[in-house]
Amino acid sequence: MQNRQTNSTQTSAMQADIRQLEQIFSRFYDIGTNSQGGVTRLAYTEEEDQMHEAFRALAGEMGFETYTDEVGNSYAANAVEGEYTLFGSHLDSVVNGGRYDGVCGVIAGLLVMDWARTEGLEVPLRTAAFRCEESSRFGKSTVGSALVAGRIGRRDVEHLEGIDGAVFGEVFEKRGLNLEPERIKRVKQYLELHIEQGKILDEGGLRVGIVTDIAGPRRYHIHIHGKAEHSGATPMNMRYDALCAAGQLILDIEGIGRAEGAHQSVATVGSIQVEPNVLNVTPGQVVLGVDLRGIQVESIARMETDMKAAAKRVSEERGVIIFVEKTTDMLPIGLNGEMGSRLIACAERLRIPYKVMPSGAGHDAMSFAGLCPTAMVFIPCRQGQSHNKNEFTPLESIYDGARVLYEYVKGETL
Amino acid sequence: MQNRQTNSTQTSAMQADIRQLEQIFSRFYDIGTNSQGGVTRLAYTEEEDQMHEAFRALAGEMGFETYTDEVGNSYAANAVEGEYTLFGSHLDSVVNGGRYDGVCGVIAGLLVMDWARTEGLEVPLRTAAFRCEESSRFGKSTVGSALVAGRIGRRDVEHLEGIDGAVFGEVFEKRGLNLEPERIKRVKQYLELHIEQGKILDEGGLRVGIVTDIAGPRRYHIHIHGKAEHSGATPMNMRYDALCAAGQLILDIEGIGRAEGAHQSVATVGSIQVEPNVLNVTPGQVVLGVDLRGIQVESIARMETDMKAAAKRVSEERGVIIFVEKTTDMLPIGLNGEMGSRLIACAERLRIPYKVMPSGAGHDAMSFAGLCPTAMVFIPCRQGQSHNKNEFTPLESIYDGARVLYEYVKGETL
Repeated sequence: MQNRQTNSTQTSAMQADIRQLEQIFSRFYDIGTNSQGGVTRLAYTEEEDQMHEAFRALAGEMGFETYTDEVGNSYAANAVEGEYTLFGSHLDSVVNGGRYDGVCGVIAGLLVMDWARTEGLEVPLRTAAFRCEESSRFGKSTVGSALVAGRIGRRDVEHLEGIDGAVFGEVFEKRGLNLEPERIKRVKQYLELHIEQGKILDEGGLRVGIVTDIAGPRRYHIHIHGKAEHSGATPMNMRYDALCAAGQLILDIEGIGRAEGAHQSVATVGSIQVEPNVLNVTPGQVVLGVDLRGIQVESIARMETDMKAAAKRVSEERGVIIFVEKTTDMLPIGLNGEMGSRLIACAERLRIPYKVMPSGAGHDAMSFAGLCPTAMVFIPCRQGQSHNKNEFTPLESIYDGARVLYEYVKGETL
Repeated sequence: MQNRQTNSTQTSAMQADIRQLEQIFSRFYDIGTNSQGGVTRLAYTEEEDQMHEAFRALAGEMGFETYTDEVGNSYAANAVEGEYTLFGSHLDSVVNGGRYDGVCGVIAGLLVMDWARTEGLEVPLRTAAFRCEESSRFGKSTVGSALVAGRIGRRDVEHLEGIDGAVFGEVFEKRGLNLEPERIKRVKQYLELHIEQGKILDEGGLRVGIVTDIAGPRRYHIHIHGKAEHSGATPMNMRYDALCAAGQLILDIEGIGRAEGAHQSVATVGSIQVEPNVLNVTPGQVVLGVDLRGIQVESIARMETDMKAAAKRVSEERGVIIFVEKTTDMLPIGLNGEMGSRLIACAERLRIPYKVMPSGAGHDAMSFAGLCPTAMVFIPCRQGQSHNKNEFTPLESIYDGARVLYEYVKGETL
């Protein structure tokens, strides 16, 4: 980012920055591309390795020192010594995912480091590319960052089984990685740029989001036991149809989420498994997968209470057995308020329309929130689409987000 | 069934009959048994072949002539010439199914033929064991009987693909069977005993059902197109959740079935497919499988109209796209009223508690209803369970049903 004196030089400087961004982005583009047009770059697979190799090669060419840690995360560091500001995000993807989730944050970090050096900013900066942020392979998210930040340990991951049957601990052993890595040191603060993965910014015509909190998901399996009977031979009034009970619960849970909407909570039945799931038998068993999220613990607790009450009521009304099994319970995480305020000031100085908002999705930033002051900047993604091949963010959006980060680190030198 | 003079000889005669029934039933018991305790005897597989071999061997030992037709159905015939009464049912099963569905009707036929010969009844009788009554392998039911009864032809089955990838026409060619078989001849009337596959008889303490009609299923796929979005990052009021729309339709369709319950119609959402069906994405697409059945065409038509109206309303209310695709439309089939009346009289003479009722499930009898006078007798099955390993009918129930059939054929000689 060159100095900007006039509108025309400002425009051509921006064009040069976008061109650079395009070149950086293209280094990752093809890796893990599949026949459906998306990318599959699962944690600790060859495709994720290629992403990390591309990152380190690129950072090296840009003149930064690169290294990896004991769990395979990659870093780029500038030449300034001392407690550093860490930018970070991840380079893995979901199955048939998009090219922006994670990658944007990593390349924004490199871009800001490049600008800082060009402008002679004496600020210690590093960019981290974390491993295994997505739960797509091992069912657990933000693993690479959480391991080095000490948020999780050996016991949390060692026995995880991958969708390919691989065992996490064995994968680590094979790769010569360490399940008990040294904790990351001298991080002054952590800053993550990420696509929103929702459509609030996109639909609102806003260019960045300053994140206040990261929602804590509570997840459940609701097991419904009815009776599988011949659908032609069982009169309506003799049925114990588990799918009808499920239909009622799906609507109840939607209503519960809506009722807590003012508190920025959401309630989703995302998955359903039905047995036997054929046309000539009344559904005998259903398992619903429920995700309750919010940034207010009280709101999440109310949703849980209401959901259990709904399950009890449906069970009694229909004579089916229902039990609610909690599978995940993570607390919402508040990000650093002072950093947030400073990021807001940066967006205002740059005249970039912004929104202060929570993050419904989880991010590597969660791993650092307990370790050092941590903040996040969102950029819009088209129609909120994410985790599929239609995920898209114009380079201009990454540029906007990176400018806010850069404005922030410039403030560090004042 | 020996002549019965006194209560005690009657009881011992019954005991002898039950023992015979047990021996007959045991000949089929082990065939196709799988590790889960049920049986898998799919159409035109080795297991179904074994069932037919057992049937022909047994019938031969009992002194009857046996033969097969051009599509592989097996028959046993007594020595009396002329237009014959045909008992029939099938020997194939669903995947991991029960041991009574179909088999009961076939062995009841043999038993009645045995009693008739013992008592010197000069009535031409035959028992048919049809192939491929279940749709479990090729997606089409009552194929063996429908082919020889001329209800379906080559074009209806030739290209059917099995769940194992086999093509129906190729299976026939390999086995030397004929897709254009000669039509079955000289059938005076068709009589099928079958387990109810519902719980009306069992819960009502009734011992046989006299079937008036066989319900015609109309089947549909309801396609719901919402939006797959990040479940954490998409506020409740910005969602187009296809599963919530599905929940509403499931309850609407249940209500539609209940409203037509007085007309003995039923409405079932038996299957659901959700994309992407994961916890962190709002469901984007749902396909519901719907089965509407009844014995009154007007009632079925009302259910269809109401279901389409519900789909339109849900689509408008939620801003999701819904379309209703009809995949099957079979008319209900009325069985022969005169035969029904005579069967009722038989049950009354034998003091066997009976119920006059429709059949919600389809049966081989449908293939014959257009060819000759056709009737069906139901026997109870425990808790209405069918199409799984828990399917159970005491031998005494098969015996009761067979006695009604025998009483019926005795009437033929008067």
